[in-house]
Amino acid sequence: MPNSTVVKNSKNNYKKTNQVHSFLLYGKHAVESALLNPKRKISALWCTAENAPWLRDLLLQAHRDKITLKIVDKKELDKMLPQDAVHQGVVLETQPLPNVDLTEVICRCENNPLARILVLDQVSDPQNIGAIIRSCAAFNISALIMQDKNSPQESGAMVKASAGTIEFLPVCRVTNLSRALETLKQNGFWCIGMDGYAKHSIDKINKNAKIAVVMGSEGKGLRRLVQDNCDDTVKLLINPNVESLNVSVAAAIALYELSKF
Amino acid sequence: MPNSTVVKNSKNNYKKTNQVHSFLLYGKHAVESALLNPKRKISALWCTAENAPWLRDLLLQAHRDKITLKIVDKKELDKMLPQDAVHQGVVLETQPLPNVDLTEVICRCENNPLARILVLDQVSDPQNIGAIIRSCAAFNISALIMQDKNSPQESGAMVKASAGTIEFLPVCRVTNLSRALETLKQNGFWCIGMDGYAKHSIDKINKNAKIAVVMGSEGKGLRRLVQDNCDDTVKLLINPNVESLNVSVAAAIALYELSKF
Repeated sequence: MPNSTVVKNSKNNYKKTNQVHSFLLYGKHAVESALLNPKRKISALWCTAENAPWLRDLLLQAHRDKITLKIVDKKELDKMLPQDAVHQGVVLETQPLPNVDLTEVICRCENNPLARILVLDQVSDPQNIGAIIRSCAAFNISALIMQDKNSPQESGAMVKASAGTIEFLPVCRVTNLSRALETLKQNGFWCIGMDGYAKHSIDKINKNAKIAVVMGSEGKGLRRLVQDNCDDTVKLLINPNVESLNVSVAAAIALYELSKF
Repeated sequence: MPNSTVVKNSKNNYKKTNQVHSFLLYGKHAVESALLNPKRKISALWCTAENAPWLRDLLLQAHRDKITLKIVDKKELDKMLPQDAVHQGVVLETQPLPNVDLTEVICRCENNPLARILVLDQVSDPQNIGAIIRSCAAFNISALIMQDKNSPQESGAMVKASAGTIEFLPVCRVTNLSRALETLKQNGFWCIGMDGYAKHSIDKINKNAKIAVVMGSEGKGLRRLVQDNCDDTVKLLINPNVESLNVSVAAAIALYELSKF
């Protein structure tokens, strides 16, 4: 198993005070999308013999022919990863994608009067975040913003759950979520928080605007200060006997509703 | 660790040719809902010392005071369960809930002209099924139908992902899904299959009817024969660069859309 090297990010483009960690990314779809993403730095690539032909073709196609393909037994890959990781015979070592900063997110939305952004307030499960990234990509969301602290780093499980869509969704980690909401509001975004106790439901809001929708964490929902920084709160209409929806499900429904026009 | 006893179901109300397996159910919310469900048979209950007071109160409230609470160390509970199982200090041994048969499902929907049923065609991941059960409960779905073969049995991971809602959602396992769709159609249900290649989107259908919505498996989608047995197919409008949504996310959005009127 490779050592997860911890190196200082020389370009400081991830987070000034942060160190960049390496991690293992696995699964055919996730690996293919990663290899095709020019922003994805790859430090090693392993596969089983039967996966070598298509990976060699892919390396050529992605202009990554300098990467050496290490052919190993399935068992060796099993040992590298957590027990439940479905690697399908392909594993690569990489680092988190460069952070997209808030100014860039806002610039990208400048000419889109119906831009949508999803903001996560301390959602902690990597698989939920991966599934949310997949839904963001599916519903043409311009960016995902999350607080750097108390949010998991990019990982194999997160990338796998995103089904490779993390390679093209801008993800922006910020130090202070409330301040980010302030900046979004100053730049014409209507910030709505999802809250089960809100007065009205999400399908009733005016969708003819730039909208940032804010989701709270799995257990606790939105923090008070974050909620206070929203322009409004809305809910999904569900059976009152059911406490809540899974956060990735609730996020997907909100994004679906906001994508309808 | 307790042995998972495999016993013949004397009442034969689960499935005639099947054997009932015991499994471990864990987590405060899941255990509380299970104890409060009179249909849930419980063969053993373990907890850490700090969980004993509320569990004793709950056992009284649920008229289950004959159950002996076994107080153990957290480490012992850890050993009983898979590594990633978040048990919060409570574990019980149980059996799958009795199957609800198709005739009963149809009877329950008789007086509801807007009844909704969700049908799963070989969805295989227990956590996806658990999350789908939670969404069914949230959107007032009358029942979940799935093929018995190639669908996982009720398990701790499934119950946990359902956040306890499996205790009140009727789940009907059938031998032949195509035949079940035939029966639903004969009983006034409009059967629609979810398919990314369908011509029209789900929000365009006539919702003023009894509807059974059919979801395919994670990798392969709907099987041809099942699709042929649907009255119509519909899709969710997503970015064409994204192959599909997670099945539990797609199911939840479909149920949300069908719950709007």
